[in-house]
Amino acid sequence: MNEPESLWHGGDLGEARRLFPGAPEPFIDLSTGINPVPYPLPALPSSLWQRLPAAEDEAALLAAARGAYGVPAHAGIVAAPGTQILIDLLPRLMPRGTTAVLGPTYGEHAAAWARAGHGVREVATPEEAAGADVLVVVNPNNPDGRILPREALAALASGGGLLVVDEAFADFTPAVSLTPALPPATLVLRSFGKTYGLAGLRLGFAVGDPALIARLSQALGRWPVAGPALAVGTKALTDEAWFAAASLDRAADAARLDAMLGRIGTIVGGTALYRLVETDEAPAWFARLGAAGIYVRRFAGRPHLLRFGLPGDDAAWSRLAAVLTKG
Amino acid sequence: MNEPESLWHGGDLGEARRLFPGAPEPFIDLSTGINPVPYPLPALPSSLWQRLPAAEDEAALLAAARGAYGVPAHAGIVAAPGTQILIDLLPRLMPRGTTAVLGPTYGEHAAAWARAGHGVREVATPEEAAGADVLVVVNPNNPDGRILPREALAALASGGGLLVVDEAFADFTPAVSLTPALPPATLVLRSFGKTYGLAGLRLGFAVGDPALIARLSQALGRWPVAGPALAVGTKALTDEAWFAAASLDRAADAARLDAMLGRIGTIVGGTALYRLVETDEAPAWFARLGAAGIYVRRFAGRPHLLRFGLPGDDAAWSRLAAVLTKG
Repeated sequence: MNEPESLWHGGDLGEARRLFPGAPEPFIDLSTGINPVPYPLPALPSSLWQRLPAAEDEAALLAAARGAYGVPAHAGIVAAPGTQILIDLLPRLMPRGTTAVLGPTYGEHAAAWARAGHGVREVATPEEAAGADVLVVVNPNNPDGRILPREALAALASGGGLLVVDEAFADFTPAVSLTPALPPATLVLRSFGKTYGLAGLRLGFAVGDPALIARLSQALGRWPVAGPALAVGTKALTDEAWFAAASLDRAADAARLDAMLGRIGTIVGGTALYRLVETDEAPAWFARLGAAGIYVRRFAGRPHLLRFGLPGDDAAWSRLAAVLTKG
Repeated sequence: MNEPESLWHGGDLGEARRLFPGAPEPFIDLSTGINPVPYPLPALPSSLWQRLPAAEDEAALLAAARGAYGVPAHAGIVAAPGTQILIDLLPRLMPRGTTAVLGPTYGEHAAAWARAGHGVREVATPEEAAGADVLVVVNPNNPDGRILPREALAALASGGGLLVVDEAFADFTPAVSLTPALPPATLVLRSFGKTYGLAGLRLGFAVGDPALIARLSQALGRWPVAGPALAVGTKALTDEAWFAAASLDRAADAARLDAMLGRIGTIVGGTALYRLVETDEAPAWFARLGAAGIYVRRFAGRPHLLRFGLPGDDAAWSRLAAVLTKG
């Protein structure tokens, strides 16, 4: 939590250019877990930009999300401009208490609970969370891809507190998701932008107990999601053919990336959208890749790890291969 | 506060169609205060949709907003996906206390403070707010356009509590705005979507004490505003020629609308983006206009008032004139 923020977030090529001022352009951004082959943007009627988002359009988006994520009828769902705002709002709606975060993981969870005045501790196993009011699990985990099976999660949900499961990277491994079998006292976060390659659109969801979802919805206020995001999200989340193809294609990309990364270290985890490599030479590889205009993710305090997102086109694959085989 | 929500918000043509199922299409929406002649959307590079919004892009937007609104250097500013979310978040960041809302006005302010557990009272004059921890003033007011002069507002700001000024409709009357002369302990809200006719984009700002702005920013989390909104907002807020022309055009529209509305009642207020009419026949006019496919704003508990937004093109002006002269 005390590390410089810039080390905890990818996707900022401004930072990459400051670190590597002489690197060739265009910079290739492999520092995120965002699908590099985005859902094709449909034509957007100008009324979506001009008018306040319509209640019908929001209802259509939520119905599409229920279908895509398999949300049970008894669960509530709310859409937000990205899951990050849900991560930040949730702790402000809960009575002050103790929150355990299964870590190491995405740093924003612990930071948000701490900012809202809760006691926060990072735990290495769910058992260590005993007694906490809230347990946060990122599943699959970021960055190592560690997966807690549904049954283990469901058992945790019966522990008496609130279980928060961040399924930002669960879309392409649906068997991992707790959403379709949502236990009581559980809140699941789903991210639209990563899977559909449209992180700039800002769209995410919370699924869970209807009363808690209603409070999140009230805190977000009316019209939190832009009209164009409602329309794109509705179309994408009902496009099963695109999803099926993307799922296969990204899995193939991940395998291709693993083959390359095996040259420089040990693949210690990942998801369909990023791979985590361990090597004593990680700082040298970070610098070598950066100098070649390829920005990957490093982690403060964990100098042997590098996380690689998927290259998005032939040029990016070639440039990556050229650096990795040269080293 | 107890009125049906549908009466407090315009812009929902689904509601209009339910009320007037046989009305001719396209429905003309005069129920909002949104500029009907929007800022022309620039070409948007696909990267704005795909990547997380860049820190540089957010900084550029905030610089543009500082210029457009005349924000003093000592004040903080934060961008949000619309001002509504700021209205909802602010009460959750303030210690519980008593909030006075100068009314009648936009209902969401009082509702948001009440939802967050504050005592709320509507006051008819600023003097009645004595002793409150927070005073909320919409200036110019919605729906009646009542304006408190800068000097009066500045005096209120020195009362010891927090002064919240919602300047959603101040853009076209900049002499009214407190923003350039921001007193301490004041928070000003500015709306992008209304003036620039892009309400679906979701963009608004809070300006004020840097510590309070920092807390709002933390509650919003990272990347609250979509990439396309950052780009459109930056371009629009630095386009002085468009703003100058829009300011003149909308003032002419308002005068033209007043001339028409004078036939059916007394114009009791408004701003450059809407006009408020008082007539004993308001319910009959609401129904007559609705049946002709023109949706205007009525107000629960105030049956003599109708609010008219500006028609956006010749067809809309003609259809409105046809109803108003027939009655």
